[in-house]
This record gives sequence, structure tokens and C-alpha cells, in this order.
Amino acid sequence: MVQLEESKCDLLIVGAGPAGLMAATWAARCGIHARILDKRRTKIFHGQADGLQCRSLEIFDSFGFADRVWKESNHLLEMCLWNPDETSRIRRTDTIPDTIPGISRFQQVVLHQGRIERVFLDSLKDYSEIEIERGVVPEQLEIDHSKADDDHAYPIKVKIRYLDDDEAAPVQHGTNVPDGLFRSSLAEDDTDDLIRKSQRKKGSIEVIRAKYLIGCDGAHSWTRRQLGFRMEGEQTDFVWGVLDIVPITNFPDIRMRCAIHSAESGSIMIIPRENRLVRLYIQLKEVNSEVDRSKITPEIILKAAQNIISPYKLAYDYCDWWTAYQIGQRVGNSFSCDDRVFLAGDAVHTHSPKAGQGMNVSMQDTYNLGWKIGLVVKGLAKRSILRTYQSERRRVAQDLINFDRRFSRLFSGRPARDAADEAGISMAEFKVAFEKGNMFASGLAVDYGASILVAKPGDSADQGDGTDVDTVTNSTDRVVGKQELASNIKLGMRFPSFQVLNQSDARPWHFGQFLKSDGRFRIIILAGNLRDEKQWKRLEDFGDLLAKPDSVIRRYTPSEKPIDSVIEILVIHSALRQEVELLDIHEIFHPFDEKRGWDYEKVFVDDLSYHQGHGEAYKNYGVDKERGCVVIARPDQYVGWIGEIEDVEDIDRYFSEVLIPQV
Amino acid sequence: MVQLEESKCDLLIVGAGPAGLMAATWAARCGIHARILDKRRTKIFHGQADGLQCRSLEIFDSFGFADRVWKESNHLLEMCLWNPDETSRIRRTDTIPDTIPGISRFQQVVLHQGRIERVFLDSLKDYSEIEIERGVVPEQLEIDHSKADDDHAYPIKVKIRYLDDDEAAPVQHGTNVPDGLFRSSLAEDDTDDLIRKSQRKKGSIEVIRAKYLIGCDGAHSWTRRQLGFRMEGEQTDFVWGVLDIVPITNFPDIRMRCAIHSAESGSIMIIPRENRLVRLYIQLKEVNSEVDRSKITPEIILKAAQNIISPYKLAYDYCDWWTAYQIGQRVGNSFSCDDRVFLAGDAVHTHSPKAGQGMNVSMQDTYNLGWKIGLVVKGLAKRSILRTYQSERRRVAQDLINFDRRFSRLFSGRPARDAADEAGISMAEFKVAFEKGNMFASGLAVDYGASILVAKPGDSADQGDGTDVDTVTNSTDRVVGKQELASNIKLGMRFPSFQVLNQSDARPWHFGQFLKSDGRFRIIILAGNLRDEKQWKRLEDFGDLLAKPDSVIRRYTPSEKPIDSVIEILVIHSALRQEVELLDIHEIFHPFDEKRGWDYEKVFVDDLSYHQGHGEAYKNYGVDKERGCVVIARPDQYVGWIGEIEDVEDIDRYFSEVLIPQV
Repeated sequence: MVQLEESKCDLLIVGAGPAGLMAATWAARCGIHARILDKRRTKIFHGQADGLQCRSLEIFDSFGFADRVWKESNHLLEMCLWNPDETSRIRRTDTIPDTIPGISRFQQVVLHQGRIERVFLDSLKDYSEIEIERGVVPEQLEIDHSKADDDHAYPIKVKIRYLDDDEAAPVQHGTNVPDGLFRSSLAEDDTDDLIRKSQRKKGSIEVIRAKYLIGCDGAHSWTRRQLGFRMEGEQTDFVWGVLDIVPITNFPDIRMRCAIHSAESGSIMIIPRENRLVRLYIQLKEVNSEVDRSKITPEIILKAAQNIISPYKLAYDYCDWWTAYQIGQRVGNSFSCDDRVFLAGDAVHTHSPKAGQGMNVSMQDTYNLGWKIGLVVKGLAKRSILRTYQSERRRVAQDLINFDRRFSRLFSGRPARDAADEAGISMAEFKVAFEKGNMFASGLAVDYGASILVAKPGDSADQGDGTDVDTVTNSTDRVVGKQELASNIKLGMRFPSFQVLNQSDARPWHFGQFLKSDGRFRIIILAGNLRDEKQWKRLEDFGDLLAKPDSVIRRYTPSEKPIDSVIEILVIHSALRQEVELLDIHEIFHPFDEKRGWDYEKVFVDDLSYHQGHGEAYKNYGVDKERGCVVIARPDQYVGWIGEIEDVEDIDRYFSEVLIPQV
Repeated sequence: MVQLEESKCDLLIVGAGPAGLMAATWAARCGIHARILDKRRTKIFHGQADGLQCRSLEIFDSFGFADRVWKESNHLLEMCLWNPDETSRIRRTDTIPDTIPGISRFQQVVLHQGRIERVFLDSLKDYSEIEIERGVVPEQLEIDHSKADDDHAYPIKVKIRYLDDDEAAPVQHGTNVPDGLFRSSLAEDDTDDLIRKSQRKKGSIEVIRAKYLIGCDGAHSWTRRQLGFRMEGEQTDFVWGVLDIVPITNFPDIRMRCAIHSAESGSIMIIPRENRLVRLYIQLKEVNSEVDRSKITPEIILKAAQNIISPYKLAYDYCDWWTAYQIGQRVGNSFSCDDRVFLAGDAVHTHSPKAGQGMNVSMQDTYNLGWKIGLVVKGLAKRSILRTYQSERRRVAQDLINFDRRFSRLFSGRPARDAADEAGISMAEFKVAFEKGNMFASGLAVDYGASILVAKPGDSADQGDGTDVDTVTNSTDRVVGKQELASNIKLGMRFPSFQVLNQSDARPWHFGQFLKSDGRFRIIILAGNLRDEKQWKRLEDFGDLLAKPDSVIRRYTPSEKPIDSVIEILVIHSALRQEVELLDIHEIFHPFDEKRGWDYEKVFVDDLSYHQGHGEAYKNYGVDKERGCVVIARPDQYVGWIGEIEDVEDIDRYFSEVLIPQV
């Protein structure tokens, strides 16, 4: 056994599924030195998630790759509810929009996990040298707790082993239809992945010293076991069968998302997918937790589906994939050790697949964490922001499990025969729950509690998972944003997006397209009516303060870097575009560069476009069109603070808790 | 000198600029055997066009790659006109939308030719084995006229020579700023191109026998010279300077398209581009046709620009590219020899660059021609359709030159000092001409004349370039469409696109997205109100006729091919989506496949979407919402015929002139 040279990195990511890839993507965009390991030699996975929330698409867009996913995916527009009538025949009883209209510029879509991982991999290649190191397992983890608070230390020591070919080879099941353990459709994409340095090192050992580690290593997380953390909650009795087929059927809503409750044969969820595929999720009622899952076959799952969907016919010639699994509804008792080692994704929460949440919540865990680690490693932000990961994301996981419990009961229960049938499930109640659940399931209901990153009133432990994240010594000193200035820009929630125009070229954009995931905080000035002299003066005065040598933007920006590299300032005004000249506005809002001239990408206007109507951004943001307001958006687009244009001191106080002065 | 083996191909394309690449793209999509040659070893070009019309983007979308261009390009939204005031200082006098609102789902954009060619090359790779053969020159052309009408013959013989390294090496000019002869920014993309078979064959000779040949070999076309065809028209005195810079300026509209007329210093056209670049087009007034163009430098062009734009400042630190050229306004006297050898693009029309037409019209030449050759080679269509290439495209070229002459005078003239200044140009007249010109410049005004492909009333020679394309022996027998049934679907113009919903999954699409460039004709049934019993019956009866063993769709489709492979039928109805069930509609409109089930991608509805409003397709098409109508769209989306749902006999007559029975 060869012992390779010891090496160092800023961030070590264990597991290259969606959560791990999201963490790596942040590392790439922040420019820190990260490595990402996966024990599998190629991209193979048991369960393959495919539902993407609006919020996940917004996040992809902030990295610049939502368009690829949007184009390749199947879009879910309508949800059809089918229930038994008085003769026990299933009937379409309701149709509801799958995504609540107006909540996002995206709607829910489905695309299989392999394609999504491919998009991440391509993006990593475009922005960094980070490559997935496959066929590698971590074998030993040591943490030097005494150095946890030392910004320059590498307190984590991980011993990894490069697997032999035999160990890393995929095991394929015995049927002729690929199950979750093998996906031939990924073969083409994996050419690059197969040529790996790891193959040249097989059998050898390496010691990595890291500043930070994220365990994205799934439900059986090795990282979690090393930390001795527990999953809390319960295993359910539900065994789920999943079948991806090109259906041959006369069921009329096969291209809609459907929840079908049969009278006596159980329930099915239909998810139409790309390339004429349809996924069927079926809770297999005849099996219980004692059943050997390996005995389940596609034929058993199909038979169950046929019973539910009767009198309609259902068959297939082509099955793309299938699996069967039993799920637990559990949350990890802790998400972090010393704010140095973190757990994310399935490693700290497991639940049912019905609401299409799994991959989304997992990616959003590391989306929350990645920039925090990035800024801390770069010496721009204080280590104390890392504590908000657990308070913010463990709370989301808890909410998710509660949602899943409620929803599972409604989905899986037998429909009530009539009002007197108390053992049955009320289909009216199911519909209401579904409509409410849609907001949750969009990912847009996430509302982070008070902390140094969210200037909200109230108790931060209550609003999070119970962790104390109020690091301000005297909590009455904590800055609190003025929610009343922007009724639809919620402190703790993601900054919504509406159409605005670029002041200098009249092009319409969703404003969200400028909130890129590049590690920058943003001060968004809704500058109000710039044709009003007083309002113009307010913005000028603000500009003068920001332009001072000791302003927030100067103080936290390394002197050799462009002025907008730590905090970017964006302006949206509400006067008519043609009545305002960009170059008349204070120069700090369109900084000059000797080689590139003025910056034309920072000032926007809420005005009518030539071809795409009026975004009505001020109205939709709930902001006064005359006076405006100022918002701080975190690098992940969540709203940190809201105030008046004069509240420069509060902006100073917000950043003084979060960032480290550079001069 | 090595003589290589003689080879055969269906289509030989000489020149791999945009026109040649478009021809190759059609060949790839039709699945015919094509080769494409270019004498340059790598992608280098003198002038580099960058403006893309709405219509070009629609065409790109029909091939599936508009999204890439749309994302990378700079969008032009507003045009600003600047003119001298009474003190001779330039002032912004007008702003007009750069693209007329509502005419297309795209707006005009700019992206440099190298990127556009890259998108074509990637698409060729995805769909075919066609590769650009670089470093190859044609040396001899022979046409066996006696075999021109023999469908199985290869009447064209071309001798080509693989260049030595020296011959194919690019020549670079002496300044440190790259001019039109060399573009280092393309280097990365050209890696693949540089590894060419042609390098291994250098110095050798090959004889290619081809069924068809297209000369896309530029203004100095070798192909045209072999045919002995002439360019008709005149060389202008205008010398144009073009400068691509990242400007440092206080001119307020530098990110808008601008036409600036100075009082005494000439005119400039400003085109803002991607990556902060701006292109300046300047007519250099001090030079005349006697001037040696090689003496022109970027400094001379900048100085001219500074004079025009004064009192605003203009400078740059970075120049990306520049060139100077003199243009002719000319059209070829013939576009085709024997309907076997064709000329396209700059080989048959040259004009000024101001309206951003060049690359567009050139690509659209071969977009018109490619599918015709494809269908003829495959034995699906009659050779007589090839004659429409000249009648349709030479007419467009003539219109373009006329437009350019009018427009050049207005653009380049000195502004009139006052109403009495008859030698000067009226700026009011310029504005009106510009607004009118915008329709022409969008590419959407193209209106092909009567022919076997366009069932229009009137004289086909008059409506085209004078060529007789009326191949029906007795012209009173010619089928004529009923324009009155669809006031905004114009016979001879491209089928417009409005939003509709997929009947089976409620997803909104621009209908144009289904008019893919795959070589198929389409029968588009605007089926009207399917909730009306009589209307339902009309569609059922039409379905019965189409389903017959001798119907048009069966007769012209090879028996081993899917029923929709030559003529595809698409339906748009106007009843409420939720009140119609797809599977109730006649099965010919959603054909069944034993392995893939029903087809869910052929029936659409003009109804309200959940997230993107109502497309109002019937209203926008100008079609009666109750009764509907039927339209034949050519493979290039141009409208061939319009009629009632009962006019099956006219549909038969249309196709009987165009297609060849397969059974």
C-alpha cells in the first residue's frame, strides 16, 4: 500500500451527488481550493431524484445554467386529482396549477438527476480546476478541536483510500431492466469521468488536511458516523415502488402530474417526464416493513399501478429504470461539529419522495453553506456566520419532515367513502393540503430566522432550530430591518424577481438575473422617483457617503480589488427611463474603469418595455414608488436587511457583524 | 501531385461562411450526403458581420439553437437618432424601438460571426458526420448539361486541390491591432478545425462527382466565375471604416443603436455589442474610390468618429478588430445553372453593412434552397421545385439592393440646414425611412411570389425575379389558397408564431417552436371550436379522409416510414382546454405507436395559460374562432396554401405538383 504525500485544501467535500456538487460549485465561484470525492467509480445512484422546485431553478439561474435545465426538462403545469366516485370508479375531481402562479419566474420541472449532475460538472469545468475524484473512500477523520477557531488552521485530517477496480465496480441486478444501481443512459456523459487520476493511484492512501469538510455522503453517511451524530425520527412502514416507463395507456391525464386515490387498491403519483417517459410512484400496500425489498420486481409495481388506474389500461414496452425503497422520516440531531465539519442532504434528513423535495432541499443545504465557507476562507467574513447553517437548514429539515408526515397520511390513506367514514381520508382535505403544500414544495416558503445575517426582530433560537445564533453580545444592539418599507421583500426570504429595464440600453431583464451567485453581498437601492428633486438629492447624499474612503464598500473590500468585489450596489429607480440619464447619476452607482469605461450594468428602471410589457416591480415589491428603500441581499439572495436611504448607519452595523475590515 | 480516388456526394458546398453552413445544416437535417469545403485553413474572414434579424433567430430556433445565440448576444432594443441642432451641436432628436413590437418572438441582436459559425458547427456535429474540409480549393468545374434532368445522375464534376501549408496560412497585417484578416479571439474554438484530414492530403487532387453544388464562396466567387455569370449594378464611392472597441466615452447613448448625423463631419452608426464592445460604422468622407484602402488605420477611423460625436469624448484602450472596405451594390444576373449549380450569399449580392442585412440574407438564401435539394435528392419532391430558388431569392436580393440604395443616401448625406436646403437630407424623412426600413430589416417582410410552392393568385414571373416558375401547364389549373380565411397568415410569408398550449399537458409554447426545420411539410389545422358538434364533425370527417389508404399523407410517405415523416399534421383548436380530451379526437391527429403509445405533441389549444397569459392565437392569426381553417406550411415555414377544412381536394392538388408518390 502506497502512502501518498500529505496535502492541504480549504474545503473537502465527501460525496458527489447534488448536495456535494452544489458545494463544489460555490467553491468554484468563490475561488477557494476545494476537493470533492466519491466512492463510486462512475455516476451511479440508487434512487434518482428528478423534481426541481422553482427555487432550485432560481439558484441554477444565479449560477448561469438554469436555461439548460429548463430546455431539457419536462415542465409540470397542472396537477390532476383523481378519486373514486360512488361506484368506486376513479374520476378526475379537480385540476390545480402545479406551481402557484406569480411566485417565481420558473415553474416546477422534472429532469433526471444524471442530467442535472452533468450540468453541474460542466459548470465546474468552466469556472475551476475542480474535478470529481471518483473511486475514493474516506477512512479516518480527526478533528483538532483546539484549533477550531483559528482562521489559519487546518484542523481536519482525513485519510482517504483509492479503491481497487474490483471495489469500485458497479454491481448490477439480475433483471434485464436496469434498476437504481445501474444507469446505462449515462454512459456517454461519463467518458471524462472514467479517465481519472484515481485509477492511476489505486490501492494507495492519502492524508488530506482541510480547513472545512462537508459530508454529503447520503443516508448512510460515513461522515455522520465518524462524528457520532444521530438521526432522529422513525422508519416508516411504507415501501415505495418507482417505475420509469414509456406508458401505453388510455388514461387521459398521463402527461399531467396526477395523484390518484383508488377506492381499495391504494394510491399512485404520476410524474410525466422528458422523452415521453412517465414516472409512477406507488406505495405498495401489500408489502410491509418485513418484506425483502429485493423480491420486488417491475412487474409487481406495474400490477399495483394497473389495479389503481383501472378501468383504464396501462402497459409499457420500454422501462427506463425502476426501484423500490423504504423510507425513514428523520432529521440529524446536529448539522455541524465545531463549525468545521458539516453534514448536508440525505446525511441529515430523509423523507418520502412524493413532494419532489429530496434533491432540492439537499442542494439548498449546501447552497446555504457554500458561500459562507467561501467568504470565511477568503478572510472576508467572520467565522460566526457559519453557525447560521445549522439554525437555518436544520429548521428547514424539521419543517420538511413535518410536511412529509402530514402529507404522507393524506396521500397514502384510503379515501373516505362518505362523510361518516372517519377512518378514510377526506379528498377535500387532501386538495386543500395539496394547494397549501404547493407553496412549501416550491422552495419559496423558506424563511430564515433572526441572526447576524438576517436583521429580523424576535428570538433567533425560536426562529431557527433552537441553536443560539445571536452573536451580538447585547441583543438589543442587534440591527433590525424595516419590513414595512417593502411589503413583498421579506426579511429572511429570498429577494423576489420582477422585470426591470437596464437604464442604458432599455433591455428587459428579470432582476433576479443580476443576483448572481458569485459570493458578493448586494445593496439594492430602490431609488424611487429620480425626477423628484428631493429624491434625487437623497440618492446623491447616499452616493457621497458610499464614496467616502471609510464607507462600507471601501472598508470591507481589499484595496487591490475592484470596488464592487465584496459588496455590489445595484439601483432600480421608478422614474421614466427616457427622462433619466445614467451618467447624471452619482458615479459610485456606475463606477468608472480606466480600461473599460463606465459600468452600464448596475442601474435599472421599473418602466414599460418595448416587447415584454411592464414589470411593475415597485408595485410587486410593495415599495413606495416615490421614496423607495434600501435592501441588503446576502450572496444567496436572502434578504438580510431593509431600511431607508438614510439608514447608512444600520448598513454599517449589519456588515460590521458579518464582514472583516480589509484595511 | 497525388491524385486521390474519385468520390461521389449528393451535395457539394463551396465556402463555409454562414451561407455555406446553413446549406450544410439542412443537408444534416435532411440526412443527405453533403461535403463542405473552404480554402481557409482556419476560420478567418475579412469582414465579420454581426447583426441578426428576427427572422434569422426564428430560423435558428427551428434548428434548435436560437437559445444559445439569444443568451450570448447583445440585444438591440432602442434606436436613437442624433442630429445637429441650429448651433450644429448634435442632439438626440428621436428614439424608436429597434424591432417593431409584436412582429416576432425575437428581437434583433448582435453577436459576432465567429460565435454564430461555432453554433452551426456544433449543430452539424450533433446531427451528422459533416465536417468542414478546410485548406481545399476547387480548381475545375464541369457540368454535363445533358443529364441535368436525370434524378439519378451526378452531372457535376469538380476537381479540388488540398492546399500546402504555405498557401493556406493566414496573412496578418502590420499593426498590433488585429484587422479583418485575423481574429485571435477565435483561436480556442478552432482547435478541432485545425486537425483536419486535409492536412494529411496536402498537395493532392481529388475529383468529386456531385448531384448538386452550391457556391457560397463570397463576393469573388470562384463558382460564379466558372459559370460565367455576371454581377449587375455598380461599385459605390463609399469607403466604410469599422472599429470594434470598448469605448471610453461620455456619449450618453453608447449602449443604444445610434445613427448620428453631424452637421459637417459625416455620419456614424453605433452598434453596441456583447462584452462591452461597441462597433462603429463610419463612412469615411475624406476618401474616395481612388484611395488605397491599405493606408487606412484604426486611428483614422477613430478620428473620424471623434469629429462626428463631438462635443462628446470618445477614446478606447482596447480595440478588438477593425477594417475598412468599399462596397458595391450588385445582384447576380442568374442564381442557378440547370437547377444543379446554385449561387448564394455574397456570391450573388453585395451591399452596404448599415442595415445589418448581409449575413442574414445570405443565410436565408441557403435556408430557402437547402430543404428543396434535400427533398429532391431523397426522391420525395419533384425537381421542378428547385426553380423557385432563383425566383424567390433573386427577388429578395433585388429588393435588398433597392432598399440599400435609398437608405444609403439618407444615411450618408449631410443633414439639411433648414427646409430650404435642398442639397441636404431631411431628418424627418430619414426617421420615416428608418421606421419603414425596420420591417424590411427584420427579414419578416419577405413575401414569396406565386409558384407551385405558393398557391397565390397572380403572375408568378411578376411576383418573382422574372423567372417563369409556373410549371402547371394550364395556369388556370393552379390551386389558389383562400387568403380571406386567415388575414394574418399570409400566403408566401412565414407562418407567424403565437402562444398556444399543449392539449395534453397544458404547457405554453410559441407555436413556431413546433415548425422544426426537419424537411417536413406541415398541414396545420386550425380546428375551431371543438365543443361545437358541427365543428367536431367537420374535423372527424377530415380525419377520416386523411386516414384513408390513398390520402395525401399515405401517398407521399414511403411505406416503411412513420406516417408523419413527410407531411406532419398539427392541430390548434379554440375550445377550452379542459373541455376537450385528446384521446376523443380522431386518432390520425395523435397517431399511435406500438412502442411509444399515443403521440401527445400534435394537438394544441388557444387557451389561457397558468403563468404566461393568453396567446390569443386565433385573434392574432385572424382566423374565425368557430370555423377555423387549414394551412399548408412549407418545410421552411412559408405559407403554401390556405383553405377550408373541407378543401381536401385542393390539398391533394397542391401536393401533387410538389411531391412524388411513394407507392
